[in-house]
Amino acid sequence: MPSNFLTQLQSMTESHGLLFGENTAPYCLDQRRRFQGQALAVARPKSTEQLVELVKLCAEHHIAMVPQGGNTSLCGAATPDSSGHSLIIAFERMNQFIEVDADNNTITVDAGVTLQQVQTAALAANRLFPANWGAAASCQIGGALATNAGGVNVLRYGNMRELTLGLEVVLADGTIWHGLRGLRKDNTGYDLKQLFVGAEGTLGLISRAVLRLYPLPTAHATALIDVDSPAVAVELLRDLQAKVGDRVTSFELISRPCLDLLKRHFPELQQPFSPSPAWCVLLELSDGGNSEQLISQLAEILFDAGFSNAYVAQNQRQAQDFWRLRERIPEAQRIEGVSIKHDISIPVGDIPRFLTECQNELIQQYPDANIVAFGHLGDGNLHYNLFLTEKTALIYQFELAINAIVYRLVAQYNGSISAEHGIGQLKKQSLSQYRTATELLMMRSIKQALDPQQLMNPGKVLLDLNQQID
Amino acid sequence: MPSNFLTQLQSMTESHGLLFGENTAPYCLDQRRRFQGQALAVARPKSTEQLVELVKLCAEHHIAMVPQGGNTSLCGAATPDSSGHSLIIAFERMNQFIEVDADNNTITVDAGVTLQQVQTAALAANRLFPANWGAAASCQIGGALATNAGGVNVLRYGNMRELTLGLEVVLADGTIWHGLRGLRKDNTGYDLKQLFVGAEGTLGLISRAVLRLYPLPTAHATALIDVDSPAVAVELLRDLQAKVGDRVTSFELISRPCLDLLKRHFPELQQPFSPSPAWCVLLELSDGGNSEQLISQLAEILFDAGFSNAYVAQNQRQAQDFWRLRERIPEAQRIEGVSIKHDISIPVGDIPRFLTECQNELIQQYPDANIVAFGHLGDGNLHYNLFLTEKTALIYQFELAINAIVYRLVAQYNGSISAEHGIGQLKKQSLSQYRTATELLMMRSIKQALDPQQLMNPGKVLLDLNQQID
Repeated sequence: MPSNFLTQLQSMTESHGLLFGENTAPYCLDQRRRFQGQALAVARPKSTEQLVELVKLCAEHHIAMVPQGGNTSLCGAATPDSSGHSLIIAFERMNQFIEVDADNNTITVDAGVTLQQVQTAALAANRLFPANWGAAASCQIGGALATNAGGVNVLRYGNMRELTLGLEVVLADGTIWHGLRGLRKDNTGYDLKQLFVGAEGTLGLISRAVLRLYPLPTAHATALIDVDSPAVAVELLRDLQAKVGDRVTSFELISRPCLDLLKRHFPELQQPFSPSPAWCVLLELSDGGNSEQLISQLAEILFDAGFSNAYVAQNQRQAQDFWRLRERIPEAQRIEGVSIKHDISIPVGDIPRFLTECQNELIQQYPDANIVAFGHLGDGNLHYNLFLTEKTALIYQFELAINAIVYRLVAQYNGSISAEHGIGQLKKQSLSQYRTATELLMMRSIKQALDPQQLMNPGKVLLDLNQQID
Repeated sequence: MPSNFLTQLQSMTESHGLLFGENTAPYCLDQRRRFQGQALAVARPKSTEQLVELVKLCAEHHIAMVPQGGNTSLCGAATPDSSGHSLIIAFERMNQFIEVDADNNTITVDAGVTLQQVQTAALAANRLFPANWGAAASCQIGGALATNAGGVNVLRYGNMRELTLGLEVVLADGTIWHGLRGLRKDNTGYDLKQLFVGAEGTLGLISRAVLRLYPLPTAHATALIDVDSPAVAVELLRDLQAKVGDRVTSFELISRPCLDLLKRHFPELQQPFSPSPAWCVLLELSDGGNSEQLISQLAEILFDAGFSNAYVAQNQRQAQDFWRLRERIPEAQRIEGVSIKHDISIPVGDIPRFLTECQNELIQQYPDANIVAFGHLGDGNLHYNLFLTEKTALIYQFELAINAIVYRLVAQYNGSISAEHGIGQLKKQSLSQYRTATELLMMRSIKQALDPQQLMNPGKVLLDLNQQID
């Protein structure tokens, strides 16, 4: 079957940008180097029409399709399995269409356009596209949507889901769903676009999207604050929101081990605190008007609330320096070595207790644990990572046991084992444990309804049925 | 079958609050008096457990279920068909549970709790639940969610969909889906709750919900502004948002015929303008801090932008008077007589052209047409209603022809024939015309996956298959 498929694939047209053999290698390895697969080929369509041709050919020959954007998934969601029987569909050449409608506050883009390109196009129209995270320059909108990615501005603007108004999707049989509407309100039946956002390509392939734009803030105020404890951080968040509402754009919690890692691996990055506080908050307000006023308003609020060890950036350079501390944490971790990572969320008010309880349990089991916790406190989302300082080389042996401790507590607080990174291959086993049989059954029945041949990114999100039964 | 079902229903327990015969009449008529049906009985469960019992009994006996909240649907979504073979499930007694989590900015409520109860409970915790519309005192959260209702604050806070974090749903077979999570970020598989929001009870019955709360604004500024034309209104909206961002909470467009109707039927309501402008905008800003500052900021912006015929409310009473003008438009219409109503949305920037083109076409066909247009301009959502002054009694004869003109133009602008009221029975025929075969097929396959017996609110949203084929 594959050889017949390959013949037809090659005979179709050169413009699919086909890659074979060694040229497929970079597409078969995920960026964290935890998943390596094999593929029949990589196809790189340039248009929705070419994508349709490919999907129809795959459907006809029963060939699995693995969509891939910037290959920046943290869960192996874009990496094929090892069978070598699937076709990777890379969107890098579907990146031409970018259209801003400033009156409607929307931007319409091809799936292969990078997040940074969207940000830049919005800026040129004096608008903000608020989604932002580390991989902005390389990740693509299709992947960001398929993952329902989050980032540092979710507190104010929402995840990719909330930023999406319309989608064009190529369905499993090659039919195009034309859902490219730029409407704020549309109650005409089931909200189909919601199914594809966060589905990691398992229900259909997003080819184009209409995204929300926002007024471009002209004022910014950034502060780095010693907060003593996560409980004080939550209190500060609610106090600030009561006073300045949605101007609170980012609210990031950082623990001392993060600052220690930064000191060790990036000594050139200045840290205002000495000694390092147990917990600090990096926050940003944004607004219209001018920055001076917002900066003095923020300073006043922090002073009134009694934060004596707080640094309010006086200019953009200082603000960037503060942000660089937050942005370099993942890199400092990579340099430090291998860790067991969690991307969890729980109700915001429960985070202080969760942090204490989880640390206590982990330290009891793993006295050499170094817990590097940080993240988007405003969204209840923690990146909760664990190094074993005495058994780094063996750490993956303990992964399941460590996950079990963390996820059990997350479940106790009615939280999520994947807040913003998705499931991919990495967490599909955990998903089947931490979501109910009813939920898994509903997901399967939706999958069955939209992809009856099970060809769309198989082996991601949901376990294969035989694995499920094991 | 029904008699056997009824025997079992009555033998189950008195606590289902069963109603029969004449007592079911108020539940069988929609509030606009356009749809009248019949039912075997009305059941009024007090808890999710009782609801489960009812659903299981219905599933066993193949009895259709029609969920009903405050019976305020504008499209007949909660009215049974005339067969008399379905069971109405009214949620009025499932209204006990209301729990605010101020730290997490969430409220968890039973489906039968009214919108006003949610607003009040939020206020008591110094928080805002922002959804608001005319029927707040009588509509229930379950219905509001099933309709994905909108209202006057969508511009800033979103529809019910965006205000929902988690749901508990009783599925078609009586299984409970426990999706009551209060998380801002949760990427663990398909976002199941999105399926039930806006599905009008056709996929399952929402029994409880976790909703977002917001900081309670302490400052308000309200203005009524002569804008000359809808194009000037769009320009003002974007100018305001550039200057004060999300503080723009409501932005309502009102046409002269609305003001005329108010003068005729509510002469006691003071209108600041004389003569009435062709178009005016009612807008509200809200923020932390105090109102005086916000009011003078708004006055300054309007003055700088050259709006000479603008009234900024100087106190809460004046603001309420302005809002009363907007709120009384629907009632003034009802007193005036029967009209053909549309609840449409199109991209905001296209509204000015749409209004001109649609009016021209309609007046050409119906020289006696009085077009009463108003609505949520900030969301691209217009309530676009048409009186025929010389043929009021016969107006419904022209409904399809009038709809055809309006909807064709809406479709040209890639808009929606139902922005916030849903489909129900009223628009299911139109839905099948104005959404593509692919979309309808996707909806049907999802319906089939979650409600294979077709027992959940049948005859709503989607046409019966045999009607479809006609």
